Amino acid sequence: MKGYVHVYTGNGKGKTTASIGLIVRALGHGLKVYMGQFMKGQKYGELNTLEKLGVLVDRFGTENCIISPENVTDLDLAKAKEGYRKVEEILLSKKYDLIVLDEICVSVYFNLITKEEILHLIEIKPEETELILTGRYAPKEVIERADLVTEMKEIKHYYNCGVMARDGIER
Amino acid sequence: MKGYVHVYTGNGKGKTTASIGLIVRALGHGLKVYMGQFMKGQKYGELNTLEKLGVLVDRFGTENCIISPENVTDLDLAKAKEGYRKVEEILLSKKYDLIVLDEICVSVYFNLITKEEILHLIEIKPEETELILTGRYAPKEVIERADLVTEMKEIKHYYNCGVMARDGIER
Repeated sequence: MKGYVHVYTGNGKGKTTASIGLIVRALGHGLKVYMGQFMKGQKYGELNTLEKLGVLVDRFGTENCIISPENVTDLDLAKAKEGYRKVEEILLSKKYDLIVLDEICVSVYFNLITKEEILHLIEIKPEETELILTGRYAPKEVIERADLVTEMKEIKHYYNCGVMARDGIER
Repeated sequence: MKGYVHVYTGNGKGKTTASIGLIVRALGHGLKVYMGQFMKGQKYGELNTLEKLGVLVDRFGTENCIISPENVTDLDLAKAKEGYRKVEEILLSKKYDLIVLDEICVSVYFNLITKEEILHLIEIKPEETELILTGRYAPKEVIERADLVTEMKEIKHYYNCGVMARDGIER
């Protein structure tokens, strides 16, 4: 069965959670799953549950919350580069049916990896592997190369009203 | 902590999976979760995994794949009405921190439940409960009442190219 390339992008909520939902669905069919999270070093609730489910989650971020290309640290960059190499290995190992690369799209926007690197990862994807790429600002070239693209569009968000991120819901 | 009302709507992929991701995140924080799925009687892979995680999932649909208001059967309608009553009970029980009502928005489009019924469910939501409503064609009144609304917008989909739904990815 041919595996496809999905992109979940846009400024709305639901990109990472949709990829986690895909993991849950795939596990239900006995598929082998890997998740690599770029730019994330903070503790999110899903990690506990995914660990319980035996999903391998690698994290290529720091505690630094990156809000612009200017506040990227050398450590952020080193972690992202390490992540890229790790993901390349994972893809070449051909061990996984579903591979999620969380926040990899926005990593290009922050100059942590290049769009050529993402295109290379797509290129070396094993034929049958499903590859999920998430994050805002997905580069045009990546969208062109993907089979399935969803834009999560924010219509309304309570952050706009000054509510902070809450444990169990946003993280 | 005040709980909010989320809506995931639109024609793109990722509405149900985003709600499952929220469940995974909430479980990681030890929250109590309920999921009611309208219009779904078919077997989806996520059910196996959610069962393993101890999540209560009720299903208020049949095997009939509803594609227009015209092909709704009496049984579909009866199941949806039963679902509505069950969900009302669940909300009034105040036992759950996160309640997902999957495909409830599109159920209005197919005349299975009314938008007034959804507004009533929102109305009786316990203060601290997070309520997630998914499905295409979310009624305007529901969007107005929600705190957070994301439109999943289809940019590209391989269904368009004649690929069928596949186990482990779409179901």
